[in-house]
Amino acid sequence: MNGHATNGDVAAELSPAVFPNGEESMTLIFSPGKDSVGSLAKALKLFKSHNVNLSHIESRSSDRIPNQYEFFVDCAPGGDVTKVIEILKATMTYCSVVSRNNVNDSKVAEDYVPWFPLRIRDLDKYANQILSHGSELEADHPGFTDPVYRARRKYLADIALNYKHGDPLPHIEYTEQEVQTWGTVFRELTKLYPTHACKEFNHVFPLLMENCGYKEDSIPQFEDISNFLKDSTGFTLRPVGGLLSSRDFLAGLAFRVFHSTQYIRHHSRPLYTPEPDICHELLGHVPLFANPAFAQFSQEIGLASLGAPDDYVKRLATCYWFTVEFGLCRQNGELKAYGAGLLSSIGELQYSLSDEPELKSFDPEVTGNTPYPITEYQPTYFVAESFDDVKDKLIKFAKTIPKKFGIRYNSYTQNVQVLDSKLQLEELANNISSELQILRYTLNLLD
Amino acid sequence: MNGHATNGDVAAELSPAVFPNGEESMTLIFSPGKDSVGSLAKALKLFKSHNVNLSHIESRSSDRIPNQYEFFVDCAPGGDVTKVIEILKATMTYCSVVSRNNVNDSKVAEDYVPWFPLRIRDLDKYANQILSHGSELEADHPGFTDPVYRARRKYLADIALNYKHGDPLPHIEYTEQEVQTWGTVFRELTKLYPTHACKEFNHVFPLLMENCGYKEDSIPQFEDISNFLKDSTGFTLRPVGGLLSSRDFLAGLAFRVFHSTQYIRHHSRPLYTPEPDICHELLGHVPLFANPAFAQFSQEIGLASLGAPDDYVKRLATCYWFTVEFGLCRQNGELKAYGAGLLSSIGELQYSLSDEPELKSFDPEVTGNTPYPITEYQPTYFVAESFDDVKDKLIKFAKTIPKKFGIRYNSYTQNVQVLDSKLQLEELANNISSELQILRYTLNLLD
Amino acid sequence: MNGHATNGDVAAELSPAVFPNGEESMTLIFSPGKDSVGSLAKALKLFKSHNVNLSHIESRSSDRIPNQYEFFVDCAPGGDVTKVIEILKATMTYCSVVSRNNVNDSKVAEDYVPWFPLRIRDLDKYANQILSHGSELEADHPGFTDPVYRARRKYLADIALNYKHGDPLPHIEYTEQEVQTWGTVFRELTKLYPTHACKEFNHVFPLLMENCGYKEDSIPQFEDISNFLKDSTGFTLRPVGGLLSSRDFLAGLAFRVFHSTQYIRHHSRPLYTPEPDICHELLGHVPLFANPAFAQFSQEIGLASLGAPDDYVKRLATCYWFTVEFGLCRQNGELKAYGAGLLSSIGELQYSLSDEPELKSFDPEVTGNTPYPITEYQPTYFVAESFDDVKDKLIKFAKTIPKKFGIRYNSYTQNVQVLDSKLQLEELANNISSELQILRYTLNLLD
Amino acid sequence: MNGHATNGDVAAELSPAVFPNGEESMTLIFSPGKDSVGSLAKALKLFKSHNVNLSHIESRSSDRIPNQYEFFVDCAPGGDVTKVIEILKATMTYCSVVSRNNVNDSKVAEDYVPWFPLRIRDLDKYANQILSHGSELEADHPGFTDPVYRARRKYLADIALNYKHGDPLPHIEYTEQEVQTWGTVFRELTKLYPTHACKEFNHVFPLLMENCGYKEDSIPQFEDISNFLKDSTGFTLRPVGGLLSSRDFLAGLAFRVFHSTQYIRHHSRPLYTPEPDICHELLGHVPLFANPAFAQFSQEIGLASLGAPDDYVKRLATCYWFTVEFGLCRQNGELKAYGAGLLSSIGELQYSLSDEPELKSFDPEVTGNTPYPITEYQPTYFVAESFDDVKDKLIKFAKTIPKKFGIRYNSYTQNVQVLDSKLQLEELANNISSELQILRYTLNLLD
Repeated sequence: MNGHATNGDVAAELSPAVFPNGEESMTLIFSPGKDSVGSLAKALKLFKSHNVNLSHIESRSSDRIPNQYEFFVDCAPGGDVTKVIEILKATMTYCSVVSRNNVNDSKVAEDYVPWFPLRIRDLDKYANQILSHGSELEADHPGFTDPVYRARRKYLADIALNYKHGDPLPHIEYTEQEVQTWGTVFRELTKLYPTHACKEFNHVFPLLMENCGYKEDSIPQFEDISNFLKDSTGFTLRPVGGLLSSRDFLAGLAFRVFHSTQYIRHHSRPLYTPEPDICHELLGHVPLFANPAFAQFSQEIGLASLGAPDDYVKRLATCYWFTVEFGLCRQNGELKAYGAGLLSSIGELQYSLSDEPELKSFDPEVTGNTPYPITEYQPTYFVAESFDDVKDKLIKFAKTIPKKFGIRYNSYTQNVQVLDSKLQLEELANNISSELQILRYTLNLLD
Repeated sequence: MNGHATNGDVAAELSPAVFPNGEESMTLIFSPGKDSVGSLAKALKLFKSHNVNLSHIESRSSDRIPNQYEFFVDCAPGGDVTKVIEILKATMTYCSVVSRNNVNDSKVAEDYVPWFPLRIRDLDKYANQILSHGSELEADHPGFTDPVYRARRKYLADIALNYKHGDPLPHIEYTEQEVQTWGTVFRELTKLYPTHACKEFNHVFPLLMENCGYKEDSIPQFEDISNFLKDSTGFTLRPVGGLLSSRDFLAGLAFRVFHSTQYIRHHSRPLYTPEPDICHELLGHVPLFANPAFAQFSQEIGLASLGAPDDYVKRLATCYWFTVEFGLCRQNGELKAYGAGLLSSIGELQYSLSDEPELKSFDPEVTGNTPYPITEYQPTYFVAESFDDVKDKLIKFAKTIPKKFGIRYNSYTQNVQVLDSKLQLEELANNISSELQILRYTLNLLD
Repeated sequence: MNGHATNGDVAAELSPAVFPNGEESMTLIFSPGKDSVGSLAKALKLFKSHNVNLSHIESRSSDRIPNQYEFFVDCAPGGDVTKVIEILKATMTYCSVVSRNNVNDSKVAEDYVPWFPLRIRDLDKYANQILSHGSELEADHPGFTDPVYRARRKYLADIALNYKHGDPLPHIEYTEQEVQTWGTVFRELTKLYPTHACKEFNHVFPLLMENCGYKEDSIPQFEDISNFLKDSTGFTLRPVGGLLSSRDFLAGLAFRVFHSTQYIRHHSRPLYTPEPDICHELLGHVPLFANPAFAQFSQEIGLASLGAPDDYVKRLATCYWFTVEFGLCRQNGELKAYGAGLLSSIGELQYSLSDEPELKSFDPEVTGNTPYPITEYQPTYFVAESFDDVKDKLIKFAKTIPKKFGIRYNSYTQNVQVLDSKLQLEELANNISSELQILRYTLNLLD
Repeated sequence: MNGHATNGDVAAELSPAVFPNGEESMTLIFSPGKDSVGSLAKALKLFKSHNVNLSHIESRSSDRIPNQYEFFVDCAPGGDVTKVIEILKATMTYCSVVSRNNVNDSKVAEDYVPWFPLRIRDLDKYANQILSHGSELEADHPGFTDPVYRARRKYLADIALNYKHGDPLPHIEYTEQEVQTWGTVFRELTKLYPTHACKEFNHVFPLLMENCGYKEDSIPQFEDISNFLKDSTGFTLRPVGGLLSSRDFLAGLAFRVFHSTQYIRHHSRPLYTPEPDICHELLGHVPLFANPAFAQFSQEIGLASLGAPDDYVKRLATCYWFTVEFGLCRQNGELKAYGAGLLSSIGELQYSLSDEPELKSFDPEVTGNTPYPITEYQPTYFVAESFDDVKDKLIKFAKTIPKKFGIRYNSYTQNVQVLDSKLQLEELANNISSELQILRYTLNLLD
């Protein structure tokens, strides 16, 4: 058993993106403003005449300009898209560009916002933008020489790769061997939770047993868990076929979507895994996503990352590492673990609460710039005062990220709103008023 | 062509509920408070000892009492449930009962809240609580003697009856005959819209043509429409197998769910239908559900209806009738139609804007108590100042409905929150604060 | 006794302004923006070189532009102020003009906002802008031929004319004759209040007896009343030497200042007065200014009037007439009076609740355009649902007044804020957040 | 010149209260609830029969119970007040006690809240509760042997002792000698400000020169300064005759009132003073009270102190010491002073920005428990990120102070609201809604 390695896998969730195959994503949002008759047709002609192919096109009512339309187009690689954008910027009332490529070209960087998903279904767009396929194992992986295991990994990864938003969550029939591995991990960890996990974790855990089939002798199904989380905080699970870039992984959190693996570690070493597996996800991560304060704070990291420059994404990913993965907190004077990397590793869970590691207060300005090892126990942990406190600090930090627009998640439409007009703020003020009305009305009814 | 009859069908959407088969629904929510170890088991024993069978049971974290649990149980008919409730009320820290039956028993009425769906998936619970099955036709129905038409109706109704929340929306292959009927209606109505429909309707209509396949020669599919509405306002369509009670139909709106038929009128009389059909739904209703103000106002009717006494549900249904179905509004000094009953009836659309009918200002106190005919053109229409004004007036009216709790739709969890504790209000105040932070932050970024 | 005449006097409070002596007021607010070193000196030179004398000059920190200054200057009549303004508009980052004169010159009207007080001490600026001096009596006034009464009127009017904001309120030694007149009015009206006045009035009245010396045998002093009102709602009294224009009178309400006469009607006819006197003010007006909802609604009329065009001021004054002066309301199914013109007139108070007059629902769009007689009982009264309802309707109406800025009263600084920058809105959002924090925190403490 | 001593005086502003003459203050607030007819008379009899004399009595409308009254009574020492309170608590719907005495009696401490002023005029109640009279000098005071100086000190102290809220601020004719002392201090300090003071201070200073007569050759008058501050942030000055206890001094800040001395240091040592004098107040304190963020943060300390237990008042006073008196901040990477103790001491101002002292981040939990010397330069300074940050941290700290009620300053009525009922929270929510309406409306008007 080598608990160290638990870290390694998780780290990969957060590695900076290097697109293996030069794929690009570019979305343009533009609005012709007042004179919109036939303007979509005119715009389409513009793309065509500059040899830009569009992979997707939508028209919507603008929420920036009263009574006007807005167009969302996804450009395929190729063509003189730079010229098209230049013309759109000059002729349209509104034009925004979110783009995966070229963000290091300084001139362009001013104009382009790093690509991010605008709608929950846009998460489909990077299902295959994985850094390594789930079935590619390193030579020192316990399952490297096990063809059955490798086939199983490929099978599960392919299910995830083909998953689309709105599909029913895949039901996996786990083998007896897999269930036994799960059982070993489950049995050992649940012994430690009462004394080592934070109270919020221990509050939720029995609910997972009652509602989602958490038990030693069977592996819970995504659908049951996702429904439970949806009910509790609106979080949902989405299967992932391999490792995502930090940017993509964090973007999922903005939608309260957690990208989760479905395979399990190799049966030969049940207490060791060099990468995140279903034990890490379901035992380490899932319980706290049912906690409203934790859910909100996780989402805040995600929202902060959308459209942020690379260096800020890195800092946010590091904050994620030191909180969601390896966070400690103090409760009634005692140190407890809330990070999933700890709550899924018997060795590091015990080590983290020992006298050995260094402890610091969580502070995004400091935490976000702290380097960390991914193949051994953490030398330093950051201690949170409370989830609300972590959230407040992250929100404050997020305000320092250079952006030209505000970001808001609209949970009705499951879209991210790019806020850059006063009309949108009026609408937001309107929503706040409505909520306040409910509060006033209900205050009156309380005993 | 007999436009009168258009009303008849729609009216049925709103008739008071008479359950055909005496089915009952009762949901209990209770929380043991502090001493909760084993309390679920204890409670289950209680039900058993009083011969009450439970059709569903869930445990959740309480959002009323810190660190405690709450149980949601659905009781099957039979057993001494009255006694069980009495004991729960005496021993639990929190206990609420929402129930379909017995609400006219005065003693019970004090304690029970009329049943309503708490989660969006609870809409499944009344998929079969329909007042008449979609395939049962009246003797004067144009398709009464057409066995092919009746079989088609049964086929489509059964699809709806089997639909569960989360399923992909059924794709229907419409016959050439059906498409021709649609085409006739589409062609005639779209001639009138530019002059007769309100500007919000006319703003959305081209978007439905561009994004959802609205055109003369094919019937649009629910999935495309529902996705578009979801993107725009969070509204979704749900197929319905027959006529729902007013209470059930309005409850759907609280979740921004519109129960919609999928069959089409009989081909022999393309401009006539005695009941709502897909032409009424897609041409009359759908466009405005993409308008944020209209969507919010529709939802407000739904939210107001949840747990309201029967007489108030009737008044809300009447307000729905005179707005969503038969509403007029004044825009730039001209009278325009926004009600779906008008926008799907060539005859009544023209009549409503003529000098013939009486016009009154919309006022829920008056409107909600106005009787209306369902087999002929309306003698009176109510004129709205704006959708926001209708919404504000409805919210004000809703405050007069006797309830012991506030209601809030949580669009993250797609649950209706029964607000009856200060902890929930603190959480709500917390949400309002977060929204306000976004507003402040974005204000700073505006040019 | 001629109750009719009670109206006449009050009406004068609201007559359109005709300045007797051509006096003018013009205030300029301007900010040089970034390059502000020596900019005040430069600006002063500009005024001088165009022969514009300044009667007052202040510099303040700008709340529109971060780290910049703003200058407030009052121009005396004379000089080429138009040219100066033209230059300031061209060279300053910010420049606003509020001016009493020239508002009917259409070119100028675009640029100038009708003058209004920006600070509570600016009310001093129109202490002498009265339409007729308090000692000028009409030939049919009961005191016209009584030189002692006329001298007394002049004495009291002069006290008011010399009053400055911040001075202690003048203590008046009333003569025995004056006290007798008061006693007669007090005795007769207090007989009617229990049955004729609204409940809010009757709730406050005993407090005025306990705290402010309201009784039959002495006339209460302004200081006691003003302190009580200040404690209750922040309203204060300010003595007035004669009749103010509607614009000026309403502007006082924006600061929760009520301009009030101090003299009493002629002793020869104790139940008659052709103008507002201390009986009208203290018995009719004062009680409801201690009611928070009424105070807020009165202030809203005042705020709406600031900088509004003349025709809107007239409509607001008419709304004031039909509410604060002659308003009725329905409480528990019974008609009650809340207008001061009614509550200080024995005859009209009884008449107003009889079957004789016509009753309409209060609606600013209608009410504000209804002509009214000032020398006889009102033929029509407008009935309010509640003070909150009147307030909500007025706020809605106020939004239709064409203005280029928002208005907010800052009760800390006792200044009216002209809101026309996003920095001010950020500050406002900040305030709202702070209030919300208090609400959240206190919710937590409630039992 | 001995800059050290500057601290000594200021420290006294904050010393724990020891009442020299055993004076007591006790205010009872009670409401009879529903059956209130004659209830005040009944209550008064109760006080009499227990030999409790009342020094003041007021009746007001309750803002806790609809349509009910509330009584505020101040009890003189003597009589069985404990018994009276016991009876009131048993028979009244609402009863609160704020009291200066007995707070160390544990039984009583549960029931009594430490006394605090409820209205701005209550500040008069402790004008003479000073720890040492302004004319009593220590033997080492430079003016100890100067009878003219001592007479002058007594003269000025007596003016302050007789000052009542609402009086015009006393105008002092300063002697030539006094003006010379002022001139020396003014000249030396203004040399340092450009390089040593924070930017907010330097932004305001020129405004004080332009508007309030700040210059080397004359001492500014309170009235001019107070009017300027009132305009800027609502702060006002109030003359104080000697040293107040920490509790009383901080309570003034809750009302945005700054208790300020009017005498000047002895002319023999113009750069030295062992106590706060007018140079310290006007040069050190006044400028930043014109800054909105600073004003709000100062008020937050005051609000937090109201009704807080002694140990928390001490911590708040220590936070005040390390911020308002000796605070440093970092601006554009440079250390600057914003504390008045620094900005009025040439020696310590220079020392504080040197390498010598220790610097820590401001954190109320730490700062509030840090001991400090009062007769020498501070060994440690706390560095603020920004005034808003200090404010946010203080608000967070304030939430940890054990209180049974919320506190809100109502700037309309200049009263402190004790928030302990849901009706008050509804009213607060109502206010928030109104502010939000203004924000929405104005958003719409912005260019």
